[in-house]
Amino acid sequence: MPDIFEITHKDLAGRIGRLTTPHGTVETPTIMPVINPNIQTIPAKEMPDFGARMIITNSYIIYRKEALKAKAQQQGLHSLLEFNGPIMTDSGSFQLSVYGEVEVNNAQIIEFQQSIGTDIGVPLDIPTPPDADYDKVKQELATTNERLMEALDLNKDSQMLLAASIQGGRYPDLREQAARQLGSAGFDIYPIGAVVPLMESYRYADLVDVIVSAKKGLPSSAPVHLFGAGHPMVFALAVALGCDLFDSAAYALYAKDGRYLTADGTYHIKDLEYLPCACPICTSHSAREISASPDKIELLARHNLYVTFAEINNVKQAIRDGNLWELVERRCRTHPRLLDGLKRMTSHMDWIEQFDPSSKSTYFYCGPQSVNRPEVLRWNKRLEHLKLEGTVLIRPGGKISGEAEYDHVLHFKPPFGAYPLELKETHPLNAEVINIPDYESLTSALENTKKLIQLNPDAEFTFVHRQYWEHPLISQICQMVSHSWAV
Amino acid sequence: MPDIFEITHKDLAGRIGRLTTPHGTVETPTIMPVINPNIQTIPAKEMPDFGARMIITNSYIIYRKEALKAKAQQQGLHSLLEFNGPIMTDSGSFQLSVYGEVEVNNAQIIEFQQSIGTDIGVPLDIPTPPDADYDKVKQELATTNERLMEALDLNKDSQMLLAASIQGGRYPDLREQAARQLGSAGFDIYPIGAVVPLMESYRYADLVDVIVSAKKGLPSSAPVHLFGAGHPMVFALAVALGCDLFDSAAYALYAKDGRYLTADGTYHIKDLEYLPCACPICTSHSAREISASPDKIELLARHNLYVTFAEINNVKQAIRDGNLWELVERRCRTHPRLLDGLKRMTSHMDWIEQFDPSSKSTYFYCGPQSVNRPEVLRWNKRLEHLKLEGTVLIRPGGKISGEAEYDHVLHFKPPFGAYPLELKETHPLNAEVINIPDYESLTSALENTKKLIQLNPDAEFTFVHRQYWEHPLISQICQMVSHSWAV
Repeated sequence: MPDIFEITHKDLAGRIGRLTTPHGTVETPTIMPVINPNIQTIPAKEMPDFGARMIITNSYIIYRKEALKAKAQQQGLHSLLEFNGPIMTDSGSFQLSVYGEVEVNNAQIIEFQQSIGTDIGVPLDIPTPPDADYDKVKQELATTNERLMEALDLNKDSQMLLAASIQGGRYPDLREQAARQLGSAGFDIYPIGAVVPLMESYRYADLVDVIVSAKKGLPSSAPVHLFGAGHPMVFALAVALGCDLFDSAAYALYAKDGRYLTADGTYHIKDLEYLPCACPICTSHSAREISASPDKIELLARHNLYVTFAEINNVKQAIRDGNLWELVERRCRTHPRLLDGLKRMTSHMDWIEQFDPSSKSTYFYCGPQSVNRPEVLRWNKRLEHLKLEGTVLIRPGGKISGEAEYDHVLHFKPPFGAYPLELKETHPLNAEVINIPDYESLTSALENTKKLIQLNPDAEFTFVHRQYWEHPLISQICQMVSHSWAV
Repeated sequence: MPDIFEITHKDLAGRIGRLTTPHGTVETPTIMPVINPNIQTIPAKEMPDFGARMIITNSYIIYRKEALKAKAQQQGLHSLLEFNGPIMTDSGSFQLSVYGEVEVNNAQIIEFQQSIGTDIGVPLDIPTPPDADYDKVKQELATTNERLMEALDLNKDSQMLLAASIQGGRYPDLREQAARQLGSAGFDIYPIGAVVPLMESYRYADLVDVIVSAKKGLPSSAPVHLFGAGHPMVFALAVALGCDLFDSAAYALYAKDGRYLTADGTYHIKDLEYLPCACPICTSHSAREISASPDKIELLARHNLYVTFAEINNVKQAIRDGNLWELVERRCRTHPRLLDGLKRMTSHMDWIEQFDPSSKSTYFYCGPQSVNRPEVLRWNKRLEHLKLEGTVLIRPGGKISGEAEYDHVLHFKPPFGAYPLELKETHPLNAEVINIPDYESLTSALENTKKLIQLNPDAEFTFVHRQYWEHPLISQICQMVSHSWAV
């Protein structure tokens, strides 16, 4: 397999990459707008105007409709859609999940995709719903994986890149096992399949588990597609977990339903008095004009595409700047279920930490979840190398009279804890934090302080804390040190 | 004084209003782009294209430049600037703060503003820096207020609306006292003055105190202008505290410096690889094209205006929808100093609560500061009217076997606490909250539960809590009730 995916920048488990296909190289993360070959709400050829570099369509719809099929086979898919960039095609799996059966088999649809010049083909996997019982998921997963391996064999002499969907329902062990098996088989792209039901019911904590378990099984260099995710409010979180590709049917489906996407959630256009957006549609129309327009669906679809790609740019810029975490924190405050997803993400921080670059932009504290960031984890580990002897003063911000007489002066800063003053301008201790710490932030800082004291039994500690801090660990620490008082 | 300001919608202490001026009525909150009469980066006549309905310029600059002065006096200010909507004019106060003196006195500049047809005139107040010492602030405030009263007298037969800047540095008592004195004198618009140094140094907690103290002294029906605030990241917070008008020199000043505004902070254009925005400038240029363009300043100024007005729309829509709090929480996660501002805002919640409509959209939990929202305060007060007798079960989500045998079943939901199941679909108890509560949220819920138990000494309580909740109040409550266990 040639090296089709090159990672250029990283933040958390997210990355900017370059994906090479038969029709050129595209930068990821990116969104593939879904093009319905029957009705193009926005023609594929206009997609680059919105920032799309790659699109996705459904080979099964083309296969089933004689006129489309003939044209695609004669002129090729790119000519049919009038789009010269990379095109991914779905296989009929979606129809299988909706109708229970399709009129094509795996080998047929793979060969058809090859014959029309698809850039990324998808075998006929079984998108088992997340909540199906374990045995059913396991059984369907076995069928899926057989078909994927069959497709790999059928595709070995083709230029087409091949996607291997990771199924496994909501069972982390099955997802991870599937990912490990398929990841070592040498497919090109790895969609995470059948997650739409989780997103539709706002089960973002479960979505986080599904993504992380699939990612754990895959090689870290594999490009991952979160199949069916097209709402901009989820991009930052999903990218932070290592997803590289998204597809959006949402821009058109939501538009048909009168819905208006933003990175902070969805509005119905009839409920909008004002347009909270600067896109070319929203700066040239009022909400009422859009509602009343005969072109309402198209106008909404265009707006939806503009904000979708603006958010992808936002995410990419955040990766470049090393502040993707801060963007995720803001986006996850769009809905408490997303905040649940963020909390779940922090439970996977040991896994995320291994990908996160150690040098990045200034840490900005955003809330209790910021306590679990890789920077704080790493500082906790570094404490083991901090050897202290003699007299040690630990105090919050602001000099204390007589501090020159101590052998070491440590600054206490939640959520990190105590660190030597000399390090205060170094990353991550130059963090911007809030003046009155949240409880979780204080817990983290006090636990690290306790650990530091325990690691240096020969040093003589003095601990100065703030009067308004209320925390049970304070009295514990005061009992461990030689002197302590509140300021 | 005719009733020039009508409030139509409210949320927190924020409001949508209609401000009537000699040149028409504008909806607030809104931004007045600052027009430099010498150099118009974007001509005033184009401002409506961005959403501006009202502009502000500097009468002192016009007064000092013979050609401008003559034209303004002959043809009027609106003709000079080619703008037919309301125009506010500053007085030279800014120049006074920068240069220490100006070549005009208060009466002269008031009469000049009247003579050129200004819609909202500003007397020559003294913008004392926030950190000047108390006596100096008090003394300059007395001079300011004398000049304002002089202006009021000079303006009594004029159509011009008159602005009375509230000064008082960072001293809440002086700000509130000035606001009370001026508020009862019957000016039209109340700018809060000399806050730029606070914003420039990110002292948002101090800014919150200054706004709240001025607002406390003013009639709630008075339109308030946060003079000098033009960065979109601060609009949500400032509007939530009751500011109605903003002015933006920022769109042009930042552009001159190569800076690119967003509602989530500022970038330097040279640091942007991607444009995280869907505005007409950003969707038709790349970051590099803007950087390299001979029109760089104008392109950036246009982008800055687009995002400024998109954010105002965002804020107005949030007021309509009753979810301004959620927007403030997201915006305040742009920088830890803004989060300090949000925390400070929660310390004024008793004041804010009186303006906040009691019926609004579903409460979304966003973080520890959400615990201090008016909805939670009000629920705490309502506990006093909740009379319970017989056996009472308090339990978290999910039925417990045998619960039908209790006289009352109460659902425990942080941050609210315990409430009768019958109320679960009513506002605010239908709140969307996170599954694993933050410590502060649990504290609030447990304190309310304790209060409820104390208020109903004759009832027999059973308290069921979750195993993973760690909180000292749990054992306290367990000692107060007849039965308790963890699930």
